[in-house]
Amino acid sequence: MPLRLDAGAPGFAEAFAGLVADVRASAGDVAADVRAIIARVAGEGDAAVAELTERFDGVDLDAQGWEIGPAELDAALHGLSPELRAALDLAAARIRAFHLRQMPAGNDATDAVGVRTGVRWTPVDAAGLYVPGGRAAYPSSVLMNAIPAVVAGVRDLIMVTPTPGGEANPLVLAAARLAGVSRVFRIGGAQAVAALALGTGRIPKVDVITGPGNAWVAEAKRQLYGTVGIDMIAGPSEVVILSDGMNDPAWLAADLLAQAEHDPVAQSILITTSEVEADAVMAAVEAALPALSTEAVARASWERYGAIITVEALQDAVPLLNLLAAEHAQLMIEDPEPIFAQLRHAGSVFLGRHTPEAVGDYLAGPNHVLPTGRRARFASGLSVVDFMKRTTFLDCSAEGLAAIGPAGALLADTEGLPAHAASIRLRMGNG
Amino acid sequence: MPLRLDAGAPGFAEAFAGLVADVRASAGDVAADVRAIIARVAGEGDAAVAELTERFDGVDLDAQGWEIGPAELDAALHGLSPELRAALDLAAARIRAFHLRQMPAGNDATDAVGVRTGVRWTPVDAAGLYVPGGRAAYPSSVLMNAIPAVVAGVRDLIMVTPTPGGEANPLVLAAARLAGVSRVFRIGGAQAVAALALGTGRIPKVDVITGPGNAWVAEAKRQLYGTVGIDMIAGPSEVVILSDGMNDPAWLAADLLAQAEHDPVAQSILITTSEVEADAVMAAVEAALPALSTEAVARASWERYGAIITVEALQDAVPLLNLLAAEHAQLMIEDPEPIFAQLRHAGSVFLGRHTPEAVGDYLAGPNHVLPTGRRARFASGLSVVDFMKRTTFLDCSAEGLAAIGPAGALLADTEGLPAHAASIRLRMGNG
Repeated sequence: MPLRLDAGAPGFAEAFAGLVADVRASAGDVAADVRAIIARVAGEGDAAVAELTERFDGVDLDAQGWEIGPAELDAALHGLSPELRAALDLAAARIRAFHLRQMPAGNDATDAVGVRTGVRWTPVDAAGLYVPGGRAAYPSSVLMNAIPAVVAGVRDLIMVTPTPGGEANPLVLAAARLAGVSRVFRIGGAQAVAALALGTGRIPKVDVITGPGNAWVAEAKRQLYGTVGIDMIAGPSEVVILSDGMNDPAWLAADLLAQAEHDPVAQSILITTSEVEADAVMAAVEAALPALSTEAVARASWERYGAIITVEALQDAVPLLNLLAAEHAQLMIEDPEPIFAQLRHAGSVFLGRHTPEAVGDYLAGPNHVLPTGRRARFASGLSVVDFMKRTTFLDCSAEGLAAIGPAGALLADTEGLPAHAASIRLRMGNG
Repeated sequence: MPLRLDAGAPGFAEAFAGLVADVRASAGDVAADVRAIIARVAGEGDAAVAELTERFDGVDLDAQGWEIGPAELDAALHGLSPELRAALDLAAARIRAFHLRQMPAGNDATDAVGVRTGVRWTPVDAAGLYVPGGRAAYPSSVLMNAIPAVVAGVRDLIMVTPTPGGEANPLVLAAARLAGVSRVFRIGGAQAVAALALGTGRIPKVDVITGPGNAWVAEAKRQLYGTVGIDMIAGPSEVVILSDGMNDPAWLAADLLAQAEHDPVAQSILITTSEVEADAVMAAVEAALPALSTEAVARASWERYGAIITVEALQDAVPLLNLLAAEHAQLMIEDPEPIFAQLRHAGSVFLGRHTPEAVGDYLAGPNHVLPTGRRARFASGLSVVDFMKRTTFLDCSAEGLAAIGPAGALLADTEGLPAHAASIRLRMGNG
């Protein structure tokens, strides 16, 4: 049974705090396994990758091929039905347009004393894109990860994806081709992340690795953070929906289940001002579940992690939404703006009754790679800047240095760094 | 002896590759120690922090006070000499002005089919600022870490700094007061990072932790990354100077030593088009070293990690600069722009003969917290966005959903996610 809470009832604060603190971890400690895999890839390179791929995926890379070549990618793209090709094209175009608007602007200005300072953005040279195999092999994830890198101007986009049993998902390959991926290797797991981060004979070393994966992949990214850049550590997905009691319970149920069907440890929370609606949604979820091919996963998530919270007024939901800092927040209310203005922490916000989160998962434009597990308190969704870096610059004229140099040299003296002071004073003719 | 390389000599490529690959690690594996400390702080809270602070810093927090209060901070600020106060004020004002220009702009636009999308930036609620004790307790680091957080709009700025023997550096306290730090705790090490990340009875839980520290502090930040946001994993500092053979060897020597005096594992590299200048700089370094109070550190760094590389032409230095991806790149040449335009990877660039890196360390404006150890390939210096996060948003009108919903629902079908498809189709009246 999902949790039912009433914000006006005694003990609510403690129960809600428990909900916020609940860590939906899906795996045990894999750190030691991952350390061993990284060490093997660092020491043995391709031989380690081949052996681990044979063991975990049952694929003989040397016999079956390390790489999925351009011909196979082209064939996958051309094999799409016209409707599906049009849908992927629309998604790619909309995602590209949204991310183009995120391109950061540099700046360059000279101040009154003659000191020029500024910022310049440049793309990384090479990015690695991890795409899971099996059930979670989503073409939409390929688009969401690859397109920001392409928009950023990344030259080499190296995709890795495990092919257990040798089979790759043709939709994933089609999406890779469409998005502009450079090369695709049939490897996965911590060994693929290590190969991309360290480089091997066959696998190019990249600068940034993004993309979803299981606990081993996430731990490998964490351990290699600093050797390469990574996107945020991702946990199970979640949605919080705020409703004003005026929504179709079937819509709300579908939205809650859309989150739940991702993962048994996904979380769907409804906050509503109506007890009647809360009851109706409980019933609508039960009514919708049996028709879903994903029923088992969705039911497991809903019964273990689902929650419905009733509040007296919409305004009472604001502190709850900020404490939950959800990956996805849907505001299914007549006028979402006043609540949206008070939302400090959320990965992505979906405004109004006709904005189901699912449309954002695919093709509205914003990225679907978002901070989970309350990390929206400090983290952001994937964007072009994850594939870029900022170089600052400074240009002092002799006059500019004369204006600010003495204070700088004094501070260097104070910090006990005489060569710092000398490098300034010598240029002012008083070294 | 520093390394001497000639880009035209046989074997240069291999020798240079060795220089690029050289990891200047300053400590062994502290991961297990740090895991144990984090676990203790997670389990025992303040009691663990107090016990570890007594053990490592010799400070009895309950007797000597956990916190350095506002009166002590005020006293430190008012105790500064007028010259030093003016220098810190100038530095704070210039750093603030530069970082104000980095404030990210959101966006909000509705497209032709009636779908509104955008981005909104908000600050984190609370930031933790780690300030080392002892020799590396620099007031400039306090300004460089705290001011971007204040500019970003962070409400609570919690500083931690170890006070071995009970003594805090008054300049650090003055800088904290000047920069707008909210509270200062006299704790340090991995236990301080853990307390900030997890929260204890006395230490508030923060959302982001920044600031330099030793190997234990860096490892604690890495292990807690994901629980909180952190700035980049930092390694030993480095500079690469490009010279056209027309510079005063004493200036070049001072600049190389300014880097070297930071740390025995800092690295200073000169690339010059002049063999004569190379020899003159070698001599100028030897001449300058004995006068430095930091001689021992600077000499150790220069002799073990210093390097001088001669190239035929300035253009030949470009690929070397990009491979080094240095934290600091100084272009001491007549017209730096053509080379700067080709520099793809650098933390911060210093243009022209009158721009010593040291002036950037203190008060030019750009941040001195920069990516080290070739990480400028993918990472950026500290900025206001490290204390902020991006919330994307989506607002579909009924017409907007009608335009893009069918393609979204088709993609959901393809990925085998029926509740996703239903949440879109129900709203289009065909669930």
